[in-house]
Amino acid sequence: MLGRLGGRWQVSEAVRALPVDPQAGELRGAGGAGRAAMLFQPDETGQLTATPIAERQDTAEGRAVGGLRRLLLGRPLSSASILRERMPKSIALPVLASDLLSSVAYGPEAMLAVLVLAGSGALGLSLPIAAALVVLMVAVGTSYRQTVYAYPHGAGSYLVASDSLGPRAGLAAAAGLILDYVLTVSVSVSAGVAAITSALPALAPFSVPVALAVIGVLLIGNLRGIRVAGNVFAAPTYLFLAAILGLIAAGFVRAAAGGFTVVAPPPTPALEGLSLLVVLRAFASGATSMTGIEAVSNAVPVFRPTEWRNARTVLTWMVGILIVLFAGLTLLIHLNGLVPRADQTLLSQLARLTFPAGPWYAIIQAATALVLLLAANTAFNDLPRLLYFMARDGYVPRRFLHLGDRLALSNGLIALAVAAAVILVAFGGRTHSLIPLYAVGVFLAFTLSQTGMVNHWRHHRSPGWRRRATINGLGAALSAVVLVTAAVTKFAAGAWVVVLAIPLLIYVFRRVRRHYDHVQQALGLHAETGTHPGGGVEPAEDEPPAVVPQQVRHLFLVPVARLNQAALRTLAYVGSLGQPALALHVSPERVEADRFRAQWATWGDHIPLETILSPHRVIIPPLAGYVSALRLSHPDLTLTVVVPDVVVDHPWQRLLHYRTEQRLRRALRRHPGIVVTSMPTHLTR
Amino acid sequence: MLGRLGGRWQVSEAVRALPVDPQAGELRGAGGAGRAAMLFQPDETGQLTATPIAERQDTAEGRAVGGLRRLLLGRPLSSASILRERMPKSIALPVLASDLLSSVAYGPEAMLAVLVLAGSGALGLSLPIAAALVVLMVAVGTSYRQTVYAYPHGAGSYLVASDSLGPRAGLAAAAGLILDYVLTVSVSVSAGVAAITSALPALAPFSVPVALAVIGVLLIGNLRGIRVAGNVFAAPTYLFLAAILGLIAAGFVRAAAGGFTVVAPPPTPALEGLSLLVVLRAFASGATSMTGIEAVSNAVPVFRPTEWRNARTVLTWMVGILIVLFAGLTLLIHLNGLVPRADQTLLSQLARLTFPAGPWYAIIQAATALVLLLAANTAFNDLPRLLYFMARDGYVPRRFLHLGDRLALSNGLIALAVAAAVILVAFGGRTHSLIPLYAVGVFLAFTLSQTGMVNHWRHHRSPGWRRRATINGLGAALSAVVLVTAAVTKFAAGAWVVVLAIPLLIYVFRRVRRHYDHVQQALGLHAETGTHPGGGVEPAEDEPPAVVPQQVRHLFLVPVARLNQAALRTLAYVGSLGQPALALHVSPERVEADRFRAQWATWGDHIPLETILSPHRVIIPPLAGYVSALRLSHPDLTLTVVVPDVVVDHPWQRLLHYRTEQRLRRALRRHPGIVVTSMPTHLTR
Repeated sequence: MLGRLGGRWQVSEAVRALPVDPQAGELRGAGGAGRAAMLFQPDETGQLTATPIAERQDTAEGRAVGGLRRLLLGRPLSSASILRERMPKSIALPVLASDLLSSVAYGPEAMLAVLVLAGSGALGLSLPIAAALVVLMVAVGTSYRQTVYAYPHGAGSYLVASDSLGPRAGLAAAAGLILDYVLTVSVSVSAGVAAITSALPALAPFSVPVALAVIGVLLIGNLRGIRVAGNVFAAPTYLFLAAILGLIAAGFVRAAAGGFTVVAPPPTPALEGLSLLVVLRAFASGATSMTGIEAVSNAVPVFRPTEWRNARTVLTWMVGILIVLFAGLTLLIHLNGLVPRADQTLLSQLARLTFPAGPWYAIIQAATALVLLLAANTAFNDLPRLLYFMARDGYVPRRFLHLGDRLALSNGLIALAVAAAVILVAFGGRTHSLIPLYAVGVFLAFTLSQTGMVNHWRHHRSPGWRRRATINGLGAALSAVVLVTAAVTKFAAGAWVVVLAIPLLIYVFRRVRRHYDHVQQALGLHAETGTHPGGGVEPAEDEPPAVVPQQVRHLFLVPVARLNQAALRTLAYVGSLGQPALALHVSPERVEADRFRAQWATWGDHIPLETILSPHRVIIPPLAGYVSALRLSHPDLTLTVVVPDVVVDHPWQRLLHYRTEQRLRRALRRHPGIVVTSMPTHLTR
Repeated sequence: MLGRLGGRWQVSEAVRALPVDPQAGELRGAGGAGRAAMLFQPDETGQLTATPIAERQDTAEGRAVGGLRRLLLGRPLSSASILRERMPKSIALPVLASDLLSSVAYGPEAMLAVLVLAGSGALGLSLPIAAALVVLMVAVGTSYRQTVYAYPHGAGSYLVASDSLGPRAGLAAAAGLILDYVLTVSVSVSAGVAAITSALPALAPFSVPVALAVIGVLLIGNLRGIRVAGNVFAAPTYLFLAAILGLIAAGFVRAAAGGFTVVAPPPTPALEGLSLLVVLRAFASGATSMTGIEAVSNAVPVFRPTEWRNARTVLTWMVGILIVLFAGLTLLIHLNGLVPRADQTLLSQLARLTFPAGPWYAIIQAATALVLLLAANTAFNDLPRLLYFMARDGYVPRRFLHLGDRLALSNGLIALAVAAAVILVAFGGRTHSLIPLYAVGVFLAFTLSQTGMVNHWRHHRSPGWRRRATINGLGAALSAVVLVTAAVTKFAAGAWVVVLAIPLLIYVFRRVRRHYDHVQQALGLHAETGTHPGGGVEPAEDEPPAVVPQQVRHLFLVPVARLNQAALRTLAYVGSLGQPALALHVSPERVEADRFRAQWATWGDHIPLETILSPHRVIIPPLAGYVSALRLSHPDLTLTVVVPDVVVDHPWQRLLHYRTEQRLRRALRRHPGIVVTSMPTHLTR
């Protein structure tokens, strides 16, 4: 196709007669020698490779920005080192689990807070509900294990749902996850900062700046690359894990000493009757302990080879630890007859009861605050990758495909940080009201991805597919129960935002995709147009058939206000091209126009001149009108407007000039076949 | 000079062989016929004149904006109708006097408010101080009469001080006046709105929006042109004039009936001793009655011919009326023993005393509020003209020279409205604290312009110059007394802002002028460089001597990311110019670079290609580095970078594209001899 198009090209020999040897030998030979050699290294085949010096602006500011960047983010990494940037399992576990494990700090409490509404008698139901949740955890965990195995190159809900249920389901899952990740960052950072400011009250007036600083630190840490971020952020999660496991062990030792007698909870009056709805709500609230369980499935590519095998191992560990923590804490709370209190979390009550003295209570509380802060890090790990997969399919801007110079998906990280910071500032740092918005998005993604897996197994019918489909089906059904319960019961409390936002996001994604499809279709080289008798690729309507050079007919236009050096340089530039050229002068008065024509004649009239009277003293509209009318009456011409321009030293000085080029460009933007540019004249210093 | 430069030009015949007849006949002949004929009218010499249709954007928005503009501002006016836009004396008087005459509403009060600090006994001094002020008014008025005569084309303080005392003095006068005008608009509009809201308390919460709306109305009225603004805004000033003259007449009738007995003022304890300082402060405060007296001198060009004669007549009337109002009110206040009170203005006390019954009191109050509101209009008349004169000398951006399509100095009007609105919003509509800032700026301008006149007469020594110089000298001395007194006594109350702002403004003006001088010097065609043996006009350092076309050596560069239609159209555009061209491809990986080169070979390798490896995946910096290094090593070349570009339908879609051209342009901005442009490809719809 390309060859057929190229076969019709005719270019003059002059085009190929380069005045320079483009390769480095020549670059090195002459005036800019030193610099060119610093910038590019040729290899034996003549292939140039940019050195790090070529990557920053050669100005004082460019060097300063480059230095700061290097200080904050470290040396750029080449693509070849991507494998070294992968995470070992011991780092992947805390990085990907911080969101999931931190959820046990509030999950059991959320469940009991619903049950206690039906009176203290209903609290006994916590054990069967917890058992159901453990079943859900096992089902979803096993389900994701199967998913990782089936999609070894990245098994996120978006990919699985797109693949098995169609693009719409994939986008719905993606929209849910995106909302969830952004909210996770805002909410967990502001919760962590609240813990800090309650310990250091002097910081309280600065809680929003402190929260923004925390987001900034998370952003920079993640921009430095996966490995660095993992090393920095792993320790607090292990500390939290050790603290809670220690608490559970000590709690059971203490309970065993007491013969496992159950302490009756303090009597609480029932605010509503015990109904199925209350049980379902308690189930759905407790299920928030599971948010973050999907982290591994999106992150398969960050593991070392064999990626899927390592991911599965980490996933199994994560779910195992989650079940131990969740079940252990729920059981201990039940044994000790604890009930939710406004002034203290259940975790804090349990820690105080178990460790009445010593530093343990403080350690548990500090580790909990820290891990809540770091739960945001899981989102920084996962969202950019989700956006990458979506950008590959054209549903979000392609810039999310860009791998930064530290091999991190920089644009996704920045977008997440900005979105979370905007929400945080908009809510003045008080994001508690956003918590009801959580569960809906994430359980939508669970439900869709597991339903997708059921379809996947039915489609492939590999050995044991019935068993696998049953496991995924169970996970999907339980997730769907949580999803519907959460959406219905929390609708008025804020879930309606999510219910509205998800279709809106899907609409945006589809609009973006439609635009990219349109561009691709319009710019692609289609086979059938190659055989088109008129020659050339399908042109836009009233677009010149300008795909082979011999068909391009040029006319250069030069708007000239005054015959100064800038104008003369522009006219010389245009005149030297050997193509037809016409100068244009817009004048408010006939006298001025005559004077300008006389000046033009004095100069020698080397280029034809047309003067236009503008009786109402406007400049750009008649100029743009003339150019566009010329183009309309001669659709075979390619018009190039070259505006003389002065390059000023300081940005403020731009206010002192008229910016003809930008105005003209805007006015002519919608007309095809018109190139607007400017010939810069630099001031002598 | 121009001819000598032109004599060295050689252009190929192709440049003059236009594919179109640039004049309208040709435009009319072909496809865009109808539109071109609508846009431009040729006369018998072939001179094209833009019709109003050419002056607006040919888009739905363009038409809507054009329609709204026409509704608000009226039809565009051609430059020829400028004489019809001039003001007759009967309109010029109220338009130019509203600021001056409205001052008598607060001037006498300001004087007495200072005297009463020294006890009620000191109030008797009001008559001699008022007499001194009348002398000052006569002196300044006569002085300005002489100025208008000496500078018949515009006699503002800026022009006079620049001409006679040097540019620094002119800029100081201009800075003082600019501050004064901007403050006048903010303060008088917010005072007028305060009067409105005290009559209609329901509007009180909206006082800032109401004030902004008033500024908007003043702006639109003035943008409609001098004549319209005059007609609309003249009536309230005449009403105020009639009301106050009626009040004075009735007051004197009443006093005559009482045999002109002086009522003793109520005894008030002295807060400070009666000193020279108190007398000077009372004098300076009373002098605020004179702000606005300079309006005529700036506005000479708005009068009908013979401009200076009409201006003098109006000035004489204005000063005469001012003296009658000021002296009459001061005398009546003295006769009736009135003293300033916090809850009521002296004017209101006098009106209530004179007209205890009937509608007169209400009429006087309403007319006063209205004329305070309209005092702002004088500033709208004068400031744009001051900026025009300054722009002519290059001290402010040249856009203040632009005469809008209604023959108003639109940019100056808009700048004034914006500055006043910003101050108003910043002070939340409570601008009383700005009143002390007034007198300093305006009396600085008075003093400088009259000192300038003294110099002027001494220099010219025309008949009677001694008498004239004495009058101007007296005016200058009295103004200087007011200036120094006001600056010293009100320094802490806010005059320090003015004392700081004036030098700062002068610095800015001089920086602007230096930039324009630099541009002019750099772009001008200097005689000596024409004889320069190297040929060509003085080039910037490492600028190619590119003022004659035969010296321009071209190299076109095309950055290509993908071989799609946009890229092929760009390559065809460049290839068809018959100049050397080189395509550039930046690739993050060697494999991709090899694949691209293979594709290039398939296409036919019609244009040389250079691939650059960028191991850290950045695009713009290596590209810019390559281009700038090429330019540094070949300073004789003019490089033109043509980037393939996609023109999107909606602005939001720009977020989906990489904007290579803009980034590259910014990166290469400081390098001379490099033109960056883009070849637009429009999407088929």
